[in-house]
Amino acid sequence: MALIVQKYGGSSVADAASILRVARRIVETVAAGNQVVVVVSAMGDTTDDLIDLAQQVSAAPAPREYDMLLTSGERISMALLAMAIHDLGFEGRSFTGSQAGLITDSQHGAARIVEVTPVRVQEALADGAIPIIAGFQGFSRETKDITTLGRGGSDTTAVALAVALAADMCEIYTDVDGVFSADPRLVPAARQLPRLEYEEMLEFAAAGAKVLHLRCVEYARRAALALFVRSSFSQHPGTAITSRARMEEEGHAMEQPIIAGVAVDLSDAKVTITSVPDEPGRAAAIFEALAGADVNIDMIVQNVSAKTTGRTDVTFTCPTGSVATARAALESSRDRIGFDELLHDEHIAKVSLIGAGMKQHPGVSATFFSALAHAGVNVELISTSEIRISVVTRAETAQQAAQAVHTAFGLDASGEAVVYAGSGR
Amino acid sequence: MALIVQKYGGSSVADAASILRVARRIVETVAAGNQVVVVVSAMGDTTDDLIDLAQQVSAAPAPREYDMLLTSGERISMALLAMAIHDLGFEGRSFTGSQAGLITDSQHGAARIVEVTPVRVQEALADGAIPIIAGFQGFSRETKDITTLGRGGSDTTAVALAVALAADMCEIYTDVDGVFSADPRLVPAARQLPRLEYEEMLEFAAAGAKVLHLRCVEYARRAALALFVRSSFSQHPGTAITSRARMEEEGHAMEQPIIAGVAVDLSDAKVTITSVPDEPGRAAAIFEALAGADVNIDMIVQNVSAKTTGRTDVTFTCPTGSVATARAALESSRDRIGFDELLHDEHIAKVSLIGAGMKQHPGVSATFFSALAHAGVNVELISTSEIRISVVTRAETAQQAAQAVHTAFGLDASGEAVVYAGSGR
Repeated sequence: MALIVQKYGGSSVADAASILRVARRIVETVAAGNQVVVVVSAMGDTTDDLIDLAQQVSAAPAPREYDMLLTSGERISMALLAMAIHDLGFEGRSFTGSQAGLITDSQHGAARIVEVTPVRVQEALADGAIPIIAGFQGFSRETKDITTLGRGGSDTTAVALAVALAADMCEIYTDVDGVFSADPRLVPAARQLPRLEYEEMLEFAAAGAKVLHLRCVEYARRAALALFVRSSFSQHPGTAITSRARMEEEGHAMEQPIIAGVAVDLSDAKVTITSVPDEPGRAAAIFEALAGADVNIDMIVQNVSAKTTGRTDVTFTCPTGSVATARAALESSRDRIGFDELLHDEHIAKVSLIGAGMKQHPGVSATFFSALAHAGVNVELISTSEIRISVVTRAETAQQAAQAVHTAFGLDASGEAVVYAGSGR
Repeated sequence: MALIVQKYGGSSVADAASILRVARRIVETVAAGNQVVVVVSAMGDTTDDLIDLAQQVSAAPAPREYDMLLTSGERISMALLAMAIHDLGFEGRSFTGSQAGLITDSQHGAARIVEVTPVRVQEALADGAIPIIAGFQGFSRETKDITTLGRGGSDTTAVALAVALAADMCEIYTDVDGVFSADPRLVPAARQLPRLEYEEMLEFAAAGAKVLHLRCVEYARRAALALFVRSSFSQHPGTAITSRARMEEEGHAMEQPIIAGVAVDLSDAKVTITSVPDEPGRAAAIFEALAGADVNIDMIVQNVSAKTTGRTDVTFTCPTGSVATARAALESSRDRIGFDELLHDEHIAKVSLIGAGMKQHPGVSATFFSALAHAGVNVELISTSEIRISVVTRAETAQQAAQAVHTAFGLDASGEAVVYAGSGR
C-alpha cells in the first residue's frame, strides 16, 4: 500500500463532468489499495474571474483581501470534489490550507511555507477518509490571516504535503501527457519525455516551460521525492522527475538522452544601458538600483569597452512587466551610474537547450549554434549553465530556432538527429 | 459616536458597481463619526449558482462539504467590499464567520449560534479599521468545521454580532425601502411602515413576509436591540423595529395604527385526514408521526365529530415541500391513527392580518370577515394569535382577499378606511 499525493490543476476540474471524472480516478487509486491525499486548484477560469472582479472594485487591491478573495476558488472545487467522492461511496473530506496545517509567512500573494503540520489530514487518513486539500493557500500564524503562495502554488502545496506526510510519490495532474521535449504548439514534432532529472526540470521551469512550478521542483529535489507529471484525461504513464541516483538504481540511466529538450520564453524584455564608464563600482550601482526596485534579472552581458572612450554598454533581460520599474530605478541612479541612454526591446525570445548529458558530451554547443546559423537565426545574447545553453533572438524567429535545434539533436518524435560537426563546447 | 452594525443582502452587492455604492455608504457613516461593523451576504445569484454546481456533482451533497461550498460566496463579497473601502482611504478588514467568533453547534445547513466572541472584530475597531464579516456562516468548536445558519442567516449573523458588541443599532439593508403594509406586487397601494413592534414583525415573518428572518427578529427582541430595515439604493429612513416601551419613550406610540398590514403566504399545502375516531390519543398519534418526520405544522383544525359515526376529519397545513414526507409518515402510522383517507391540496393561500393594536380594539374580526365576504373570498380555515388573524383561501383568490382587507383597514397609501361595522372580535 502506497501513500500517494495527487494534485489536480484547474483544467482537470474545469466543470462538473471533469470533477466527476477526477473523483472516479481518485476512488480507483484508493480501491487499488493505496492511500490518497488530494490537492486541488480552483476550477478552470475561476481565479481569472475573481481577479477581474477585484480589478472592477479596486485600482490596487489590498493584498490581505486579495488573498481572501482568491482562496475562495479552491474552496469551491475541493467541496465539489469531496461531494462527488461521497456519491461514489467513499468519504471525501475537504480542508482549507489553514485546516491542513500549511503554515506560511505573512507575505500576501507570495507567501513561503514555513511549516506543514497536517494533523487533520492524518486523522482523515486514519479514519479511512480521502482528504481533499485546497492548493495555493496557507495561513500565517503571526497575523492569523489567510495567505496565498502565488500563482501555480498548488504544485508547491502538493509537494510540501507529500514531504510532510512522507508520501511515496506525488503526482501532478494536468491536461497534457507529461513534460515534452518542446512546446508542441511551437514544435509539432515534440515528444513526450518518460523521465527527467530534477536539475533538468528546474532548468526547463526557469527557461519558461509552464508545466511545473520551479519552487515545487526545488522542494521535491531537496526531499528526493518522486514526482510525476500526468494527464487526468488519459492513462498515459506521464513523466517521472527523479534523481540520477534513482535512475541508476532503476536501470534507466543508460538510456537517458544527452539532451532533454528545448524551451522558448517570450515573457522577457531586453534593456540596454549605453556608454557606461568602464570602471569599478558602475556595475554594482546598476544592479543595486535594480535589486532595490525588486526587478528580477535573468541574463547580463557587458560589451568589451571601446578603447577610445573607456565606456561600454551593459545589457540585461528581465520580465517585460518590470521594464517600466527598471527604467525608473536606473533613471533615479543616473548620476551614480553615469550612462548615456536607456534602450529597451520587448520583441525578444529566449531559446534554451537543456540536458544533463551535455556536461559529459563535447560538441553540443557547436551543434546548437550551427543549427541556429543554418536556420538563419541571429543570436543577440548568450548565457549558459552546466546543463543549459540559452540564446536571445528576435521573437519572430523563436519558432524556427526551436524547430531547428529540436531536429538537430534528434528530438523529433520520428526523426533522426542531424548533427552539425563540431568539437568542444 | 454610535456603534452601528450594517448588514447588506445579496441584491445590495450584486455586482462591482453595487459593491462600490455600498462601500461609499459605509464610509459616509464612518466619516459622520460612527463606528461601523459590516455583515455581508454573497453577491446576487452566487449562492444559487453554487447550489446548481453541487447538484451537478452529487445527488445528495454531503452536508459538511455543502457548507464548505456555500460559505465561499460571502468570502468573495466581503473581500471585494474590503478592497473597495481601502480605495476610499479607509481600512476594510474582512473576517470569515470563524475569524469573527461566530461559534455554532455542528448541525450543518441549519447551525444555531451558541456563542459570539468577536475578539478580532473588536481589535479591528480599536485599530480604526472597518470590520467586514461574512454573513450566514459559523464554526463548530466541537468538530472544528465550517457551518452555515441556513438561508437568510446573514440577518441573524448581523443581530448576533450587534448584541455581542452591544451596538447601538442594527441596520438590515435590502432592495426595498423597509417593511410594507402588504407585498406591493400583490397590493399596489401598499405603503411603507415607519415603525413596527417586534411582535408584529415576528408575525409578519411567520405569516410569509420575506423581508426579515424570523430568528433574527426573535434575537433582537430578546436583547431589545433597535433594528432597522432600509434600502441600500435610497436615503429613505426605512422601518424601525422596536418595542412598545421604546415607542412610548420616543412619543410614537399614539400614532401607531391598529393594523400594521396584510401578509400572503403561498408556500403551504393543506392535508386532511378523514374519518378519524374521535377518542383520546388519536390526535397525539397523528402529530407524533408528523413530528418524528420533522414536518413543520402551521394551522390545525378538527371538525366537530358526526354523532352517528363518532368520527371526525383533521386538517393541517405544512410547507408544500413536506407533503410527501407527511403522507408517508401518516401512512406508516395508519393502524394507530385509524383514518379512512389522506387528502392534500397545494392550491391554497394563507392571508393574515397583523397588528398589535387589535388586542385593544374590538370589531377587527368583523371588519376582516366582512371584507372577505364582500370580495367573494371563501374561508376554508381560520387561526388567530393575540395580534394576528389568518385564513386559508383558494390560492387564486389570495390577491383579491389581500386587497380587500388592505382597503377595509384604511391601509391603502392614499385611501380612506372602509370600516364594516361589527362588535367584538
